[in-house]
Amino acid sequence: MSGASIQRMKIGDFLLRRLEEAGIRHLFGVPGDYNLPLLQQLQDAGAPKWIGTCNELNASYAADGYARLTGLGALLVTNGVGPLSAINGIGGACSERVPVICIAGSVPLRSIDRGLGMHHTMADGSYDHFLRAYAPVTAAQARITPRNAATEIDRLILTAWRERLPVYMEVPSDITHLEIEVPADRLDLAAPPGDPERLRSCVAAIAGRLCAAKSPAILVDADADRFGVASELMELAEKLAAPVAVINAAKAVIDETFAHFIGVYGGKSSEPHVRQTVETSDCLLCVGYRPIEATTGDFTASLPADAIHVRGHSVDAGDDNYQAVTRGEVLRGVIDAVPRVTTNRAPRPAGAAMAAPLPDGSAKLTQAAYWRAVQSYLRPGDVLYVDNGTSFAVLGLKLPPKSTFVGSINWGSIGYSVGALLGALTAAPDRRHILLIGDGSFQVSAQELSTILRHDHKPVILLINNGGYTIERGYLGKAEPYNDVANWAYADLPKIFRRDTSARSFVVRTVGDLRAALATPNDTMIFVESLMDRHDAPATVVRSSNGGAELDYGPHGPHTQENAQLRPTT
Amino acid sequence: MSGASIQRMKIGDFLLRRLEEAGIRHLFGVPGDYNLPLLQQLQDAGAPKWIGTCNELNASYAADGYARLTGLGALLVTNGVGPLSAINGIGGACSERVPVICIAGSVPLRSIDRGLGMHHTMADGSYDHFLRAYAPVTAAQARITPRNAATEIDRLILTAWRERLPVYMEVPSDITHLEIEVPADRLDLAAPPGDPERLRSCVAAIAGRLCAAKSPAILVDADADRFGVASELMELAEKLAAPVAVINAAKAVIDETFAHFIGVYGGKSSEPHVRQTVETSDCLLCVGYRPIEATTGDFTASLPADAIHVRGHSVDAGDDNYQAVTRGEVLRGVIDAVPRVTTNRAPRPAGAAMAAPLPDGSAKLTQAAYWRAVQSYLRPGDVLYVDNGTSFAVLGLKLPPKSTFVGSINWGSIGYSVGALLGALTAAPDRRHILLIGDGSFQVSAQELSTILRHDHKPVILLINNGGYTIERGYLGKAEPYNDVANWAYADLPKIFRRDTSARSFVVRTVGDLRAALATPNDTMIFVESLMDRHDAPATVVRSSNGGAELDYGPHGPHTQENAQLRPTT
Repeated sequence: MSGASIQRMKIGDFLLRRLEEAGIRHLFGVPGDYNLPLLQQLQDAGAPKWIGTCNELNASYAADGYARLTGLGALLVTNGVGPLSAINGIGGACSERVPVICIAGSVPLRSIDRGLGMHHTMADGSYDHFLRAYAPVTAAQARITPRNAATEIDRLILTAWRERLPVYMEVPSDITHLEIEVPADRLDLAAPPGDPERLRSCVAAIAGRLCAAKSPAILVDADADRFGVASELMELAEKLAAPVAVINAAKAVIDETFAHFIGVYGGKSSEPHVRQTVETSDCLLCVGYRPIEATTGDFTASLPADAIHVRGHSVDAGDDNYQAVTRGEVLRGVIDAVPRVTTNRAPRPAGAAMAAPLPDGSAKLTQAAYWRAVQSYLRPGDVLYVDNGTSFAVLGLKLPPKSTFVGSINWGSIGYSVGALLGALTAAPDRRHILLIGDGSFQVSAQELSTILRHDHKPVILLINNGGYTIERGYLGKAEPYNDVANWAYADLPKIFRRDTSARSFVVRTVGDLRAALATPNDTMIFVESLMDRHDAPATVVRSSNGGAELDYGPHGPHTQENAQLRPTT
Repeated sequence: MSGASIQRMKIGDFLLRRLEEAGIRHLFGVPGDYNLPLLQQLQDAGAPKWIGTCNELNASYAADGYARLTGLGALLVTNGVGPLSAINGIGGACSERVPVICIAGSVPLRSIDRGLGMHHTMADGSYDHFLRAYAPVTAAQARITPRNAATEIDRLILTAWRERLPVYMEVPSDITHLEIEVPADRLDLAAPPGDPERLRSCVAAIAGRLCAAKSPAILVDADADRFGVASELMELAEKLAAPVAVINAAKAVIDETFAHFIGVYGGKSSEPHVRQTVETSDCLLCVGYRPIEATTGDFTASLPADAIHVRGHSVDAGDDNYQAVTRGEVLRGVIDAVPRVTTNRAPRPAGAAMAAPLPDGSAKLTQAAYWRAVQSYLRPGDVLYVDNGTSFAVLGLKLPPKSTFVGSINWGSIGYSVGALLGALTAAPDRRHILLIGDGSFQVSAQELSTILRHDHKPVILLINNGGYTIERGYLGKAEPYNDVANWAYADLPKIFRRDTSARSFVVRTVGDLRAALATPNDTMIFVESLMDRHDAPATVVRSSNGGAELDYGPHGPHTQENAQLRPTT
């Protein structure tokens, strides 16, 4: 480190500077006495911009949504109550590999030195409880002190970025305004180049296999998005004229109008031509493949045994496991090494069924009509959010070019999408954002709609009011009251949360109502509450729930009782 | 265990039976695929009654509020997303010593056996993350299996009860309907008697000190409530004619109209006669004393060095530390051992100031007038909830007989009180429940109002709309926007959350408005939104915040800048 220049800064100012250097322009969270000094430093500096949320869970979801569009997100909360309220969102970021920096203004070092009990703690003599609680859901954790600030702040931010995982940082309330020596140079996020020999061997191995293959194919999971290699994968597919399929968790990571894109692969839940292409490829290149029941058609996915796996920081190809190679370098090398193929090898489906026309305008709205209407509402560049529930039907839509899909297929925490919407709106206010959500999910985090309104955002919110957790009815309890939720007047919420709102709200009962609502200009928030039957659900969702019950409860589970489950009607 | 009779039961049915035997009549939570089999067993059995909440955090708060009134609470959530969403409420139960059983329907054992990735997990090959996250906030954790169910379920419930601390239990989704051998006898919660010699010595030591003392006194912290010894303490105080003070966290644990009750002790924040009585007592009996800055007037509390400490499961008296004695036995023994004193030794304050009369009805509402109006609204038997903020002023009110105070002085998580209200209403629907809350706290968990309305509860909700976190303005950021919150139309929420509600809502601007609102019959929910200035705060709250800033930020912190803090106006 000789030659590195240093400067003197207050610890809080240094932290804010590092966040900005890492690309953080907005910070989400809730104020509390232990984080106010840092908030004041942010206020004085004018950046990052503070986006106060109604609660910490929603702040963590917002930071995740922000990171989905910008690459990195952060939140600031107060000791104990803050990190524990936010931890489910951080768990989601860990499960979904989203780099989120959770910063807790924490009890002062003076109290730790003196062993003093403080509010927002267990008052039991230990100050490490929240660092411990965060260990299972973050890649790194630290309490910042004047001795370690100059190194630990960088370590945590860089770890979040390099691993694409959340980290947790405690900043004691009595050190933010203390001055220390810090590096004068900007934080460098760039991944250093890998080992040259390993890279050469790895590229040669992959390119060799691809060149020799008759039916090469590419299978993309969500990590391809997190590590930003989607465009390289499309370039490679184009050069090889090779078909590309995605896992459902990677919906829209590959442009669905791309000539070589063939669809979503998930074992038996795939369309036949997708399944056959992936499973019979003689050289399948998988990127970040991480199978769970929900992404593999209940473990019916069956990849060729010799598939190549490009993982977060390593590559598996044949007998060799390559370390110290970066995904971007490997793909770039492979693209350069393979010859261009001009015959399109992507299979076409046997013949897509013509979409049925929308029924008569006076017809009671059904899920089938609803999703057709949503399909035709979409346009290039949309950011689409899916929450758990019948909204999973969005996985079956064909998305226009440059769409972004924000979902949480692995973690699947209901309510995530409302917070994520706030975060992603903050990151990209000029894109059109469409939230697809059901009543049960919406109730979890509904209050964050007020923050979205407060900042004059203009999302389109399409809420299904069908009286409860219809997706659960496909597992168990088809008509049981435990799957019901209270019947809110959802469409009236915007004017409650912002008295002077210009939001346009609609309660939709028929196809015609929905058509009219969707024809409204999007110069302000559009909130559409669609009333549908609690036993009306897309067949794909019901089949997935039925299959899930079989896995969850075993062959003699309660779901096997007559009428215990919602079943597909077709 | 010879002679203990056994029977065969399904694991889920056994768990529900044990919960009922422990006094659990209601279970809070959110359904999810992994907990549906247990929910179906509950539905089939008809008990405990299921109270679905909008989200898991609120379920944990509800279980805590329920436990405050019944002694034990429980919630049921689904794998990963459920426990992490609920963990802040469980952390609060740990900090506040409230026995809450957090049950997570979890991934099936088949998936663990086979190492399969599942949704609602990290999909990283480990299934212990949530057990690990819960270790710092619970007294015990376990994953139930067919082998351990008969013993682990009892261990967890008994640990929660005996330690008055939360516990965490994972119930895999594929074992609830498997039949095992379980004990036929009811679960016995009674604490076994302690060691006879230790008990005798302990009682003799305490009684000897008390008999010899000229100025014995009793100081009560919240544990006296949790362990249910308030009536013994009052009996002892009466027999000794000894004054009793409480820590603010133990507000209302001792009936405030009790002849020997002298007030709240917290060092310099106490009234002079209370401070002198406690600090100069020649035999101070402390029950569950656990000092933090918020309960000790910023560590200005100064107890006599020879104070006797009755703790959760031990007693400190003089040189000896007594283990294997129970608090109830010790107090009963001491009551029987001391002679009755007839002279009331409780000091009286020098002369309480006459409360100023309420100003003219057309006067703009101030905090001063507000709290006087609240004071005169109270009546015997009320359950009072305080959330963080200017509502802390309730600590300064004189509560009528048989009042219950539900607060969270140590943990202090904003929004707790709304969930706790649901829980305590469920436990005691026929008492009058009064929620005292500010806008910032309310926004955290506002949606649970819908569950309160759904079950036809009739609380009185007194909400202060003063534009933000006024209590924080007393720390730092007197006029900074980071302490502002969005301005909801709070009083309109009941009709949003329940379309056919009969709730009476009021927006109050003047003293007369408030008087009229409080004169309304309480045959349905009363929701009063009181508009007050963001810089109007009770002097006690502002002084506490100012002192807190000094502790949190140190002598040269940002709060020392001019106009950085809201200061007391009087």
